[in-house]
Amino acid sequence: MKIYGVVMAGGGGTRLWPLSTGKKPKQFLNLSGRETLVNEALDRLSGVAQETFIVTNAAQAQEMFSQTAGRVPQDHILREPAARNTAACIGYAAMTILKKYGDGILCVVPSDPYIRDEEGFRQTLREAAAAAQETDALVTIGIRPTFPSTGYGYIKNTAVEGKAWRRVEEFVEKPDEETAKRYLAEGYAWNSGMFIWRASTILSWFEKLLPDIHAYLERLAESFGTEREEEVLWEIYPKIPKISVDYGIMERADDVLMIPGDFGWSDVGGWDAFDALKERDENGNITVGKTLLLDSRGCTAYSVDRLIAAVGVKDLIIVQAGESVLVCPASQAQRVKEIVETLAEKGEDAYL
Amino acid sequence: MKIYGVVMAGGGGTRLWPLSTGKKPKQFLNLSGRETLVNEALDRLSGVAQETFIVTNAAQAQEMFSQTAGRVPQDHILREPAARNTAACIGYAAMTILKKYGDGILCVVPSDPYIRDEEGFRQTLREAAAAAQETDALVTIGIRPTFPSTGYGYIKNTAVEGKAWRRVEEFVEKPDEETAKRYLAEGYAWNSGMFIWRASTILSWFEKLLPDIHAYLERLAESFGTEREEEVLWEIYPKIPKISVDYGIMERADDVLMIPGDFGWSDVGGWDAFDALKERDENGNITVGKTLLLDSRGCTAYSVDRLIAAVGVKDLIIVQAGESVLVCPASQAQRVKEIVETLAEKGEDAYL
Repeated sequence: MKIYGVVMAGGGGTRLWPLSTGKKPKQFLNLSGRETLVNEALDRLSGVAQETFIVTNAAQAQEMFSQTAGRVPQDHILREPAARNTAACIGYAAMTILKKYGDGILCVVPSDPYIRDEEGFRQTLREAAAAAQETDALVTIGIRPTFPSTGYGYIKNTAVEGKAWRRVEEFVEKPDEETAKRYLAEGYAWNSGMFIWRASTILSWFEKLLPDIHAYLERLAESFGTEREEEVLWEIYPKIPKISVDYGIMERADDVLMIPGDFGWSDVGGWDAFDALKERDENGNITVGKTLLLDSRGCTAYSVDRLIAAVGVKDLIIVQAGESVLVCPASQAQRVKEIVETLAEKGEDAYL
Repeated sequence: MKIYGVVMAGGGGTRLWPLSTGKKPKQFLNLSGRETLVNEALDRLSGVAQETFIVTNAAQAQEMFSQTAGRVPQDHILREPAARNTAACIGYAAMTILKKYGDGILCVVPSDPYIRDEEGFRQTLREAAAAAQETDALVTIGIRPTFPSTGYGYIKNTAVEGKAWRRVEEFVEKPDEETAKRYLAEGYAWNSGMFIWRASTILSWFEKLLPDIHAYLERLAESFGTEREEEVLWEIYPKIPKISVDYGIMERADDVLMIPGDFGWSDVGGWDAFDALKERDENGNITVGKTLLLDSRGCTAYSVDRLIAAVGVKDLIIVQAGESVLVCPASQAQRVKEIVETLAEKGEDAYL
């Protein structure tokens, strides 16, 4: 059966502000020094998927095409007229592929995780695709936790005798630290947001659990290949209810499997996730670009085109990019979104 | 007797880096939002001094002339071929004025203090000039301390019956905090580095206490008005011993008076001295330029042409200017010079 890659790349990515902005969202950033996040995601899928699709917002589609530089044909860039969360995104991709390209295994991955061991990732993905083909279940990749993170959701799971896959018992929300420690002890995995299933299978779960969304997807499908296709997309898509595929399907379906993954994964959710990308130096600092940190420890300093100079500081994130400079404690990196929200409220679009 | 202003403006001013740099030393900065420090110094003297001179380094003389925009005639900008500390600077100015313009009271002031109450300053200066004229003593202005600063030198002084001036008993070095508190209790004043005396009087003190420097000054004077004047200046000046007028004369002379001053003085010695220039807001922050400080306290954020955004930080100095961003704890503002020194060692002149 054919294997399709589906890269979800619609996010605004405010958590890496000011490096990521509306004009340059996270998926277009080159954080590894090799390639942009979206291109790394595409390159990782090659060798597993025979064809790969990108779902992105319509306004970004042209930029996406040039940024990905021939990695995907233009008609494989699926355009969302509005952001309607992951259920809509995945349903739209599944329906398009099923109707236009034929049924197959979809490997649905976000554009923005960082993955250290690419070959390990591909091996895991192949196992997941094989599991989806063999069982017709919904398959996800569960990451082996390396520390009791309070920033990720967890998956409770149990072994299945004689199989590479495990059975998913429950998806659970981001825990507090105490609970996270218990999860680690009890063998929970991190929820990676990567899903592997047949296009036809996930659509039948939409029909069962999200019938309203499924009805919208059918209306889209009816227009495929007609001269009204574009018009219908712009009319229908913005009406699709906003719900994540986790809430809408994964947590409610009764046939979900998990393939354990251990390939140096991090979702690069914010400035505190840079440990996945770069080693700390002997003072515990991570530096990118032109920096001079004297008597400073535990800092992340990221400079695009200015010098960042600091003396006597501890556990700070300092970022210079574009029109802005960001300073916050390393432990409060997630609060960057408060800055972005405040700037948006004030109409300070020049900085966003 | 004629009153001359003499503004000492030779400093490199690294303590306000990256706002002050080699190309734009502190005296050319506009910190108050009104005028540059040197122009504020000149404007403050007008109404007291009939003529004002500036002593600056030769390389900066042309820039000084255009920056001061007609405030002083070109021949009143005295050029130092090399930085030889304040005794040389003051001796050179005194000798030049005495020989070329005639004896008079010199009001010698640094270019870089901030003074809130300009009229109060002028009134104090007039009292000092009157004291110098009446007594022929060396007169200095002693600032009434507002807190037990460990960053300033102090002047021990006693009242003189029936007079506006007080007698200087002793100049003392920057104290530790315990000692500073005792000084405040005992009525010591801050050493402002402002001196008022006759040109002829200070030169006779040079002859008595710094005869080697006086000999060099005489050699300069012999060349005045000859075609060799320029050549002699460049030959002699760099040989003058480096010593401050405080060490060389003030601490050793036995006829020194002090006029108490209370006009909102601060020497703007570094980023921690900004309290003199701007009120703190309700969160204890001082901000200049485009800034957004969320849930942050006790910070000084100074932005020239970028946005400084911070969340959750305390007691930091954050500066964006030119090619650089500076971050340091407010309590360690004096360590900025370590950054400047390190950059100089590394030959990173683009940032200096």
